[in-house]
Amino acid sequence: MNGGASMGLVQRLDGERQGMDRRLAEMMYRRIGSPRVCLELWNGERVGPEQTVGCIRFRERPALWCLPLNMNLHFGDAYIKGAIEIEGDLIEVLTEIYRSMPEHSDRGLISRLLRRAINPRRNTLRRSRKNIQSHYDLGNDFYRLWLDRELIYTCAYYTDERQTLEAAQFAKMEHICRKLRLCPGETVVEAGCGWGALALHMGRYYDVRVRAYNISSEQIRHARQRAREEGLDDRVEFIEDDYRHIDGEYDVFVSVGMLEHVGREHHAELGRVIDRCLKPDGRGLLHSVGRNRPQQMSDWIEKRIFPGSYVPALSEMLSVIEPHGFSVLDVENLRMHYARTLRDWLERFEQVSDQVERMFDASFVKAWRLYLGGCSAAFAAGSVQLFQLLFARPGVSDWPLTRAHLYRE
Amino acid sequence: MNGGASMGLVQRLDGERQGMDRRLAEMMYRRIGSPRVCLELWNGERVGPEQTVGCIRFRERPALWCLPLNMNLHFGDAYIKGAIEIEGDLIEVLTEIYRSMPEHSDRGLISRLLRRAINPRRNTLRRSRKNIQSHYDLGNDFYRLWLDRELIYTCAYYTDERQTLEAAQFAKMEHICRKLRLCPGETVVEAGCGWGALALHMGRYYDVRVRAYNISSEQIRHARQRAREEGLDDRVEFIEDDYRHIDGEYDVFVSVGMLEHVGREHHAELGRVIDRCLKPDGRGLLHSVGRNRPQQMSDWIEKRIFPGSYVPALSEMLSVIEPHGFSVLDVENLRMHYARTLRDWLERFEQVSDQVERMFDASFVKAWRLYLGGCSAAFAAGSVQLFQLLFARPGVSDWPLTRAHLYRE
Repeated sequence: MNGGASMGLVQRLDGERQGMDRRLAEMMYRRIGSPRVCLELWNGERVGPEQTVGCIRFRERPALWCLPLNMNLHFGDAYIKGAIEIEGDLIEVLTEIYRSMPEHSDRGLISRLLRRAINPRRNTLRRSRKNIQSHYDLGNDFYRLWLDRELIYTCAYYTDERQTLEAAQFAKMEHICRKLRLCPGETVVEAGCGWGALALHMGRYYDVRVRAYNISSEQIRHARQRAREEGLDDRVEFIEDDYRHIDGEYDVFVSVGMLEHVGREHHAELGRVIDRCLKPDGRGLLHSVGRNRPQQMSDWIEKRIFPGSYVPALSEMLSVIEPHGFSVLDVENLRMHYARTLRDWLERFEQVSDQVERMFDASFVKAWRLYLGGCSAAFAAGSVQLFQLLFARPGVSDWPLTRAHLYRE
Repeated sequence: MNGGASMGLVQRLDGERQGMDRRLAEMMYRRIGSPRVCLELWNGERVGPEQTVGCIRFRERPALWCLPLNMNLHFGDAYIKGAIEIEGDLIEVLTEIYRSMPEHSDRGLISRLLRRAINPRRNTLRRSRKNIQSHYDLGNDFYRLWLDRELIYTCAYYTDERQTLEAAQFAKMEHICRKLRLCPGETVVEAGCGWGALALHMGRYYDVRVRAYNISSEQIRHARQRAREEGLDDRVEFIEDDYRHIDGEYDVFVSVGMLEHVGREHHAELGRVIDRCLKPDGRGLLHSVGRNRPQQMSDWIEKRIFPGSYVPALSEMLSVIEPHGFSVLDVENLRMHYARTLRDWLERFEQVSDQVERMFDASFVKAWRLYLGGCSAAFAAGSVQLFQLLFARPGVSDWPLTRAHLYRE
């Protein structure tokens, strides 16, 4: 074989490979619904329109070629490794992609079927603790860097566009307390209380007695300390235990941002806990990320960020309470509030990213950037929802005729 | 056999029969949860507490003895025949019974199973028309006697306790229009429009174009005449046809009090209609009587008042919209408003009951008294709900952050 022919073959193979790269990039571009975003390959080739809001840059071939199997998972992992970069405003680019992307396009059939059959992070009592600690026990110092001063790590409620995160988190707690119509002297049980802000708020402003459960040791430690410091520890008790072990009877059940960690296969169990612990006139509120219809979790989020989590459709949330005949009083969708909350968090996170990198490492920073930005985009695009579901024992009748009381100054 | 012995036997048999009557009455009393109501038998015997809100009087033995088979159906039928009388305030007595009665206690197992297997009034296109006409085509003159002046035959919305029915029906239409955020020039399709009040309201005050469907000829005739009289017939079109034949594309879908007539087995079909007729930015509202959990219809209501009807749980209402990925924005439970609406209707109905009796007959008056009073009681006790469900295409984002706009003067 002479050198020229060999060169020709290499060139031809190279050319063919380039052609295949391009065809795959075009295919992936169509699969995400042809957004106003371009895909740029390692060799400078670009797929997409002229006018874009940003660019997804593949720095190496494998980052493109592993996408077809499980786009969501491999996109996230490649981004963390630096094999994929996003040019332009992160939230804007991802929102544009979420808006254009048809449902279920992000995962191959085999991975969908596998995921249905195998769930390695199922929420047994022991596994739940591991799942929760892997995220919430990253250290209070880490969360203190970028959350609001009350360390509230759930969707805020912006009563107007210009509100700060702090004000919106306060407004969220008020909104929930008003919905629940807390009366002085009543008893409340909270399932999944984070760093305790809502329980303390209820004890402080509504003069109720709260028992708040959580399996994150770090969070419980912080919450107990705050209760002591504020002299609320006679009214607000923090219990390091699983929601399945809640005992006693209460006027009110509340759970903000825990249902996502319960998992679909444990909805019935949560329902039995609520039924067991609510008094005959009791009422409750479930606040959870939701879906427009039942849908599998994002693999990347479930694997890398919130192991064991599942985001239920509203009908699946109802599977918690309908079997016990609870009456739904009110459902509100706050998804645009979560888009904004996450945007605020990301902004604060970016301001301290150097510190975070020193606490963990560069790939941790990237993972959290993608998680916060990606979730903000998913809420903004309407791919995920935030449902606040208010319910009561059937027959509870001393309830205001309208919801106007929620909106009085 | 001498006369004395024969007399003794008759007396003993009589005594035994009386004992059995009493035991059955006691059993039925326990089955309805031992309310503060007494049961009085034809022979003057009474079962129940001293302090009561009223009395159920059985004027003859069969009225009691056919209850175990299907309490709900036979109670209603016996009441119409005059074999059962209710002493005391009708709504108060029935509310007390609904409050104390455990679910499913009103029907024997066999009748429950039969009802599940056989549904003679299933809503085919032809049968729907018959089902609807049997109720809604009783004559506009009849409904005009006791409905409000706009002939609105669905749950009103009382923004305060003292509001009149007229004001509350106006407020209901406003509440729906505000929830839907109608803009001038938009197009609306209404499924099941009654006598056209809401469609005309939208055309008159919101400057939208409405196509309103209904299969009741009497109602459509009246609605068209009103549109002509008010000069709204260029904007508001009334179509005598089934919701399944809706065509065209619209910004808004609205249906108030029709879902109950659709039947569970046609929810998916209604969902496909909504999906087909809503524009990419469209939104919609379903207003329907509902349940806390899936439950069979009251046989008496389904047989005698609303043939073919089914009252869905919220999860079943979601089976209309979830398959198409619509996003739930808001769910409101207005059951206390329907308790009040029905009470207002009954009060007006009683004022014209002589006229109604002349139009129909005495048993018709009794049937409607029981239907209006019984439904008011069922809503008051929390046995049935009224859900207003607002939804939109996924991704609709130009929506107010809060619901405060619904409550501004």
